[in-house]
Amino acid sequence: MRDDYLHALFSPKAIAVVGIFDSAGALARVVLSNLEGWGYQGRIVPVNWATQLEPQTVDSLTGIDLAVVCLSPEHVLEALELLADKGVKAVIITSAGFREIGGQGYYLEEAVIQLAARRNLTLLGPNCLGVASWEGRMNASLISRLPTQGNIAFFSPSGSMCNAILDWAASEAIGFSKFASLGNRAVIDEASMLQFLADDAQTSVIIGYLEGMNNGRRFARISQTITREKPVIMLQAGMTEHGQKAISSHVGALTGSERAYQTALKQAGIIQVDNLSTLFDLARMFGTQPLPNGPNLAIVTNSGGAGILAADGMAGTSLILPRFGGDTAARLAELLPRHAQSSSLVDIGMEATPVQYAKALEAVLRDRQVQMALVVIAPGLGVDLPAIVRELVAMPRVEGKPVAVCLIGQEGVMEEKRFLQRSGLPCYANPKAALSGFEAMLRYAQWKTKSYPVEVCYRRDKAKAERFLEDCLAASKTELFGFEAQPLLMAYELSFPRTELARTSRSAVKIAKRLACPVALKIASPHIEYKSDVDGVEVNLHTSEEVRQGFMNLTSRVQRQRSEAFISGCLVQEMILGKPAEVCIRAQRDPKFGPLIRFSVSGSQADIFQEYSMRLAPLSLEDAAAMMRELKVFSLLKRERGRDALDLRALEDVLLTVSQMTLDFPEIYTLEFDPVLVTSRGAWVAGVRMSLLPLLE
Amino acid sequence: MRDDYLHALFSPKAIAVVGIFDSAGALARVVLSNLEGWGYQGRIVPVNWATQLEPQTVDSLTGIDLAVVCLSPEHVLEALELLADKGVKAVIITSAGFREIGGQGYYLEEAVIQLAARRNLTLLGPNCLGVASWEGRMNASLISRLPTQGNIAFFSPSGSMCNAILDWAASEAIGFSKFASLGNRAVIDEASMLQFLADDAQTSVIIGYLEGMNNGRRFARISQTITREKPVIMLQAGMTEHGQKAISSHVGALTGSERAYQTALKQAGIIQVDNLSTLFDLARMFGTQPLPNGPNLAIVTNSGGAGILAADGMAGTSLILPRFGGDTAARLAELLPRHAQSSSLVDIGMEATPVQYAKALEAVLRDRQVQMALVVIAPGLGVDLPAIVRELVAMPRVEGKPVAVCLIGQEGVMEEKRFLQRSGLPCYANPKAALSGFEAMLRYAQWKTKSYPVEVCYRRDKAKAERFLEDCLAASKTELFGFEAQPLLMAYELSFPRTELARTSRSAVKIAKRLACPVALKIASPHIEYKSDVDGVEVNLHTSEEVRQGFMNLTSRVQRQRSEAFISGCLVQEMILGKPAEVCIRAQRDPKFGPLIRFSVSGSQADIFQEYSMRLAPLSLEDAAAMMRELKVFSLLKRERGRDALDLRALEDVLLTVSQMTLDFPEIYTLEFDPVLVTSRGAWVAGVRMSLLPLLE
Repeated sequence: MRDDYLHALFSPKAIAVVGIFDSAGALARVVLSNLEGWGYQGRIVPVNWATQLEPQTVDSLTGIDLAVVCLSPEHVLEALELLADKGVKAVIITSAGFREIGGQGYYLEEAVIQLAARRNLTLLGPNCLGVASWEGRMNASLISRLPTQGNIAFFSPSGSMCNAILDWAASEAIGFSKFASLGNRAVIDEASMLQFLADDAQTSVIIGYLEGMNNGRRFARISQTITREKPVIMLQAGMTEHGQKAISSHVGALTGSERAYQTALKQAGIIQVDNLSTLFDLARMFGTQPLPNGPNLAIVTNSGGAGILAADGMAGTSLILPRFGGDTAARLAELLPRHAQSSSLVDIGMEATPVQYAKALEAVLRDRQVQMALVVIAPGLGVDLPAIVRELVAMPRVEGKPVAVCLIGQEGVMEEKRFLQRSGLPCYANPKAALSGFEAMLRYAQWKTKSYPVEVCYRRDKAKAERFLEDCLAASKTELFGFEAQPLLMAYELSFPRTELARTSRSAVKIAKRLACPVALKIASPHIEYKSDVDGVEVNLHTSEEVRQGFMNLTSRVQRQRSEAFISGCLVQEMILGKPAEVCIRAQRDPKFGPLIRFSVSGSQADIFQEYSMRLAPLSLEDAAAMMRELKVFSLLKRERGRDALDLRALEDVLLTVSQMTLDFPEIYTLEFDPVLVTSRGAWVAGVRMSLLPLLE
Repeated sequence: MRDDYLHALFSPKAIAVVGIFDSAGALARVVLSNLEGWGYQGRIVPVNWATQLEPQTVDSLTGIDLAVVCLSPEHVLEALELLADKGVKAVIITSAGFREIGGQGYYLEEAVIQLAARRNLTLLGPNCLGVASWEGRMNASLISRLPTQGNIAFFSPSGSMCNAILDWAASEAIGFSKFASLGNRAVIDEASMLQFLADDAQTSVIIGYLEGMNNGRRFARISQTITREKPVIMLQAGMTEHGQKAISSHVGALTGSERAYQTALKQAGIIQVDNLSTLFDLARMFGTQPLPNGPNLAIVTNSGGAGILAADGMAGTSLILPRFGGDTAARLAELLPRHAQSSSLVDIGMEATPVQYAKALEAVLRDRQVQMALVVIAPGLGVDLPAIVRELVAMPRVEGKPVAVCLIGQEGVMEEKRFLQRSGLPCYANPKAALSGFEAMLRYAQWKTKSYPVEVCYRRDKAKAERFLEDCLAASKTELFGFEAQPLLMAYELSFPRTELARTSRSAVKIAKRLACPVALKIASPHIEYKSDVDGVEVNLHTSEEVRQGFMNLTSRVQRQRSEAFISGCLVQEMILGKPAEVCIRAQRDPKFGPLIRFSVSGSQADIFQEYSMRLAPLSLEDAAAMMRELKVFSLLKRERGRDALDLRALEDVLLTVSQMTLDFPEIYTLEFDPVLVTSRGAWVAGVRMSLLPLLE
């Protein structure tokens, strides 16, 4: 249903342009001239707006699929009603003066949204530049200079970014299939565009600019399947503190936390870039080249220096300069007798002929060890660039092996650059940019082969947990510490060190006997938040006498330090033996993306190195395993001397249970299990802090 | 003396071009036409080479300062003799076929070097493209297309990189003062160029391409003073493993370790970049803008989206978006009534007039909180770029506040880009590139204010140390472990836990009594390398009985495990009390840069996070302090619970002593102090490994 409507937006049979056509620079005139100038074959109906339209004007709207409305905001509602009456399916509102100006504009936009819902109108904008579809030669937008036809689709809420990106693509001969300027995203948003483009046969690469997205969770969900078919490359703005501040003052929209946002997009397989250059570097490559079958890259260059810089640029990527397999070295020696080639960085020298460039590239691509190739060309005396690029373009491609060219220099080599790009060979101004393209292709190829994540569902007593949380909220108890959360842990079958409160030393001894293992004593006082501040713990108590003595020592020591504190007694807690590793699991509910789960080691190391791994719930089995692998400090922990192999499966279970618990109960606003103790025998939640938030009905 | 000669190279009164002028494409013809075409005012003498030159040809060489020799290698020596006879001071050899081809070429180059020394010739090349000096309109090179005049000097050993960089600069209107293509660097090398350019009045920014430099140490030493006067920006190739491999096969030169190299350049205040784009980004800015007085950057943009991306790009830099001071916000509100500005990211909207761009920028620059400004412009409907850039250029500059412009897009905005750059406003295609320019300017400004490092000289008994090392080498003892190195540590007044060898339990008790403190026992056996493998340590022994028992336990336990090992007894070692922090200091002699000193924490943490700080000897006091500050893990160590404030001054002393020791004795090839124990009372070298290398005479 919705897809049909987006179809009307991009492939209408007839289009009306509604506006005021009196002045030369009128927006409606610009749209009309763009539509007419670009060769659109359907009927085009200009409607010069007046409160009382001529009957024949109204009649001319019959059979119109799409209308572009360029009116001042106060006339928009009226125009929409008329268009809906005449059976128009899709409407583009270019006009500004809605939500983005606040106040009156906000309510006007709400009215537009309600009208669109009531009259079943597909609505783009308001405050947007329109759309174009290259297939139908339809430019229903305010942008006059568009790139050539190709296979890249693009969308952006920001009009200025639409302009900037299309302008760039036009000057570099990057080909596009469709674009949409989303404006205020009153109805059509990023997620619906993505859904539509997924099935668009003309589009094989989807790029977009993201800023203050409202529906990140839906966007990420949709992406998860699309990214396995087509690469989705998103330029994300506002991913840093400075950017966040800027974005909130710019669009007035509340964004989710940037970490949640990035995590969602990463989990969905979206290729995330944070600046324009990288977006362009990737678009060049993805738009024209096949995905590589592996990381082996060969470099052919006429400049030793540029070749070394290219090799340097591979540091920190997954790309590899392989040794040649077979007789490639011999073939190159024959082709270039003056240049002995020992590796897959092939220096053909400044004096190489154009044919030698192509022949060297071909020999290299034929090598079975080589999976992609970069040609790096420095200009210079006797380097006949026009002839070289012609030879390179004429060379037969080797299937499944991407190729890119780097012409060092910017504007000096512009003609050749455009020629290459038009001929399907991506062209870069410096080796590093080309390498970032290859690296992204390689990672995307790996992503495509990954199996879909399997979500797991654990046994739990949900009713019991629900009762417990209801009781807490009913008692206005929104902060839970340690001991207090035990019923919840039990409902989810999480292990924790058995703990009981002893008010006297005698009951402490009794409890320790019942626990039948070495115990720790922890001071219990409502007035003491951090036990470590008051030296409030005694550990490794084996005998009854030790427990009794420990209780006396602990309570009197603490009371001396904090004479004002009421001391309830001590918690008697089972000691987890076997040198446990201590990790920390946190979950925080992001307003847009739901529970964001963070895994790290306990203590200050995690903070200093900022080493955390993050995932949004629900976690898959693979996610849980990957969260551990991602942490370098965790491998340190595992390796610690005198420690048996940790029961990582048990730790995975805790992670997966946190995922399930936070999804089961949106009341859980934050959750912190710290420390979780992991030994070779299992994992125990030894510290708990939770905050609850009553749900608003 | 040498400077005079470089003077002849760049400002000759008369120039000879020596070569074969028969064919149209002859190199000598290219040089001649470049010289004549560029407006050089001195005398130019073409010499068509023949074994028997006409007497009048020989006469014409009288008064020549500089000769450009474009002959095949076998004629070069003969030509040089003749030129020297005629009093020529400087010679450029463009010819290839010397060291770079190996074999015969290598010996030919050696002969050229000897001739140059004997005849006092300043020699550039061979295998180079020549030089140009804009001041004298002298283009004595093979490069026909040169940039406009400016204040940037450039050198490179690689001809292709010369070509690439000059070509780029020409197309972007970046101005140059001098360039030199160094070729094989037989006589004039990077260091001598740097020295010359330091005093060149036409040059205020020095940029270079570095690859396989032979004299890194001298280069770094010279830079240390120059960088306080002029920024020195170096594009370094071969700084990674891939690059290293490529470089050694390319130039056949042995490079120092990349870490030593980078450390040297960093300590010398050189601005290091690893790719062409960044080099260009920095050159644009440094060539035209004053250094900023602080990190506060304001952004003026017509595109909210691009503004956010720019703000995002500031993450990870030292740049700050400040709040305005004074009435700037009010002034902007007056100028742009539709755009409320709450921060120093000023969105003036797509509809802003050209004058508003300039006025907004001026208002922002006048703000006392703002120390630099970036204007980010996205193209679009109604955005009159040519008029905007004219207004921006016409705006009066504010002293001491650098400004840059970012015109989003590449070739589409080329004309405006060139116009801005020519008018002294650096122009970028994306915000991130501009920010990297500002960041580099800020760091350089900070470097300039740093005081010169003070080297310290510690009291030591050098004669004693010398005797000890001589004895070791005489006995072919090139590996020293722990205990064995004590005489050396004593000569340098380093503290270490007092240690003595006890062959029996009785002598162990005696020694422990003498040490009068808790001791540790460590197994002593020539057959056991790692004591931890055999549980070969007993610690915290207080009483004589504990020492006796410990000795018996230790020796019998180890003997059981290693029945084949000869056990000499136990080392009785003073225990360092007070929960010492354990750090690791290493020094390794780099073949080119001398001792490279590395500081890290002990154990596997350093390896996992690759957290080391490096400096080349000699260390200054500031270096030693900075080496500790740079490590995040070290701050972790300092903060550890129950630890008193560490005596960092004592640790600095150990670092400085290592610096001095390795400089005093080149025989010390590697040195490892691990662990060095640091407490609140001092620092002790508790573990030592050293390897010695006899010096070759």
